[in-house]
Amino acid sequence: MYVSDCISINGSGNLTIGGADTVEIAKEYGTPVYVFDENEIRKNLAAFRDSMNEYYGGNGLAVYASKAFCCKEMCRICMQEGTGIDVVSGGELYTALSVGFPADKIVFHGNNKTFDELSAAVENGVGRIVVDNITELETLSRIAAEKGRTAGIMFRIKPGIDAHTHDFIKTGQIDSKFGFALETGEAMEAVRKALTMPDVKLRGLHCHIGSQIFDIDPFELAAEVMLNLYKQIKDETGYEFDELNLGGGFGIKYLESEQPKPYAEYMKNVSAVVRARCEELGLKMPFVLIEPGRSVVGAAGITLYTVGAVKDIPDIRTYVSIDGGMADNPRYALYNADYEVVCANKAAEERSETVTVAGKCCESGDLIQENTKLQKVEPGDILAVLSTGAYNYSMASNYNRIPRPPVVMVKDGVSRVVVKRETYEKITENDI
Amino acid sequence: MYVSDCISINGSGNLTIGGADTVEIAKEYGTPVYVFDENEIRKNLAAFRDSMNEYYGGNGLAVYASKAFCCKEMCRICMQEGTGIDVVSGGELYTALSVGFPADKIVFHGNNKTFDELSAAVENGVGRIVVDNITELETLSRIAAEKGRTAGIMFRIKPGIDAHTHDFIKTGQIDSKFGFALETGEAMEAVRKALTMPDVKLRGLHCHIGSQIFDIDPFELAAEVMLNLYKQIKDETGYEFDELNLGGGFGIKYLESEQPKPYAEYMKNVSAVVRARCEELGLKMPFVLIEPGRSVVGAAGITLYTVGAVKDIPDIRTYVSIDGGMADNPRYALYNADYEVVCANKAAEERSETVTVAGKCCESGDLIQENTKLQKVEPGDILAVLSTGAYNYSMASNYNRIPRPPVVMVKDGVSRVVVKRETYEKITENDI
Repeated sequence: MYVSDCISINGSGNLTIGGADTVEIAKEYGTPVYVFDENEIRKNLAAFRDSMNEYYGGNGLAVYASKAFCCKEMCRICMQEGTGIDVVSGGELYTALSVGFPADKIVFHGNNKTFDELSAAVENGVGRIVVDNITELETLSRIAAEKGRTAGIMFRIKPGIDAHTHDFIKTGQIDSKFGFALETGEAMEAVRKALTMPDVKLRGLHCHIGSQIFDIDPFELAAEVMLNLYKQIKDETGYEFDELNLGGGFGIKYLESEQPKPYAEYMKNVSAVVRARCEELGLKMPFVLIEPGRSVVGAAGITLYTVGAVKDIPDIRTYVSIDGGMADNPRYALYNADYEVVCANKAAEERSETVTVAGKCCESGDLIQENTKLQKVEPGDILAVLSTGAYNYSMASNYNRIPRPPVVMVKDGVSRVVVKRETYEKITENDI
Repeated sequence: MYVSDCISINGSGNLTIGGADTVEIAKEYGTPVYVFDENEIRKNLAAFRDSMNEYYGGNGLAVYASKAFCCKEMCRICMQEGTGIDVVSGGELYTALSVGFPADKIVFHGNNKTFDELSAAVENGVGRIVVDNITELETLSRIAAEKGRTAGIMFRIKPGIDAHTHDFIKTGQIDSKFGFALETGEAMEAVRKALTMPDVKLRGLHCHIGSQIFDIDPFELAAEVMLNLYKQIKDETGYEFDELNLGGGFGIKYLESEQPKPYAEYMKNVSAVVRARCEELGLKMPFVLIEPGRSVVGAAGITLYTVGAVKDIPDIRTYVSIDGGMADNPRYALYNADYEVVCANKAAEERSETVTVAGKCCESGDLIQENTKLQKVEPGDILAVLSTGAYNYSMASNYNRIPRPPVVMVKDGVSRVVVKRETYEKITENDI
């Protein structure tokens, strides 16, 4: 009935997640609250891990892109499931290392890593630093030399592929702040330069063609483009890469109308392309990395709110106000992102109304969804916004000095807090 | 030469703010860093305060809308300048009260205040709770009765005025999540209801017609609409209001092309309308409140960044990467907001280049400005984004787990921290 696999309805007609009654969760922890189904996260991680093992014969690694949702417990879960972690900042690196995540399974991304971030990455032995540009390569080589270390690196390449997704999240084309262009020869130049540097070890190349992609073709095409480049580099320099990082971008289901393919299908098809292409070009089969983020956590999370005022403006629309909004989920304000909305305590009833869900921030643009179907609600009802596991907690702010909600994890019907609710004391404690 | 009054260039060719060298500030506090000119903030507060005194004969109050920029020191400055403070959440209320701000000069806004927020407002004797809807009125009356208090309230009214501004920040029209509509009769109904409630004291009505408005006409029109309603209420109920809250929305200069009128002019023209209209309608002259936010702090603040990689993509564009971005300033990602950008250590040089300033978040949409004029920069240069005093620190997130920058206040060339930089420890301390 609803988009997410981990969602159901119990005998009381209440929405459940991971077997737990969401109305009870709202009562116990208060609202707003982010809630995850831990089994769903583990299932997704395992699916990526196992399909990488199956289709690459163990010669690959699924790396969770933690920018989608990063906290200590999420890093522990990845560690337990045997995946890697992709971090994009010193803060994400700090989080992963703080729970003892093995540094050699960490991939460090970003278009403009600071000196301190690069130093921390080298110091802690991060396995793969994905270098974005020549300035960064030079800084990194200097840092590695000073520390007497060898930095394992990959280069981020723009493969020139447009994956037909939202403008904001289209990153493979040449007009991007990320990575080295193929067309201009700068990618080849960077490889040549890195090969002369004794303090860096160039393990392979990386590409990322966008986000929320439903087709498999662009991933296949990206793999081909990358392997053609591998061949060209081998021909021109004699150097053959050990690894290939194909990035992430696997689409998830935000609405019933969206039909993402099973992730194993991507692995199957793309691995077939990689294998065939390598044979054809006389390249050895590389160790392959992929970087799922949203597809691991997106549909595994929901956000619960309490309904406040319901404002029916005749012939215009009905505003349903909630006790959260753009401070805990800025994705509608940023991208007009789609979400399915359900009244948790009336989940079995028909969604007969068309409403606009408005946040509590003092800003007209603070909406969570416009003209969406919802049960008839009244003040005090619990509202669930589905598939909010990715880029909600991670993008949350204290706009209007609203404390960020806690994160609750449910496993087999039992819930626990994994990130505590912020307090007024905490959000003002850096104020002098 | 540059948009803000508090900005200048010193003998070394460096940009200054409030008389302090921004390059030195970047060195001392690190980047990114928000920097404010305290004198400019005080000058703006004083201008509103004094023009209210002048044009309303002392019978009015300028109330700083703290959602634009809220921290303890900003509340202290308002207290010292004798203005009120407008808060929109329990967190902002907590901040104001924590420095001893007099509760009777606090105005509490919001379209969906929670039970806890309303309780705190009543408990602490907030002078004016601006009630948004009937549900809230009923909750508030119940809370006041339980606590044996009388809650001073105003109603937020949609005056039906379209102030020709950005869609997101147009709030006076009927299709808004805020307030009571005039057209439907719900405003009158709310007034009648409040008058029967012994635990609330209805002090007057409030309207807010939008943000970043450059014309005076819509403010005049709003005052007329409100006073016509005052007259209608007096006629129909015999009740005459003591106060009128005309909200904020005064435009500021983000670009050289924008020419806001001196704020005293608004006060002069609008007060003339209020006076004339009251005489004409036989109403007593009310105590008038206004709520400037952006116009107090916006142009008084800048953000300093360090330039990382400069990526020149031939025939396409040049990306200048900085060590901050949408995490500390999401306004370009949200609204395509305009900003002027300057190289702080080359401020006297011509802005000869056209560049795109890209943030460091792992997201293509993380840009601060596209195709903007800038001096020729290189890695290590200090970049200043001007007029970032409003809705930058207040909207900042930890996206990518990037710690939020500190806020530095400059007064007569001397700088001090008023909000400390976040640490990795702090941003992970709620993680279990």
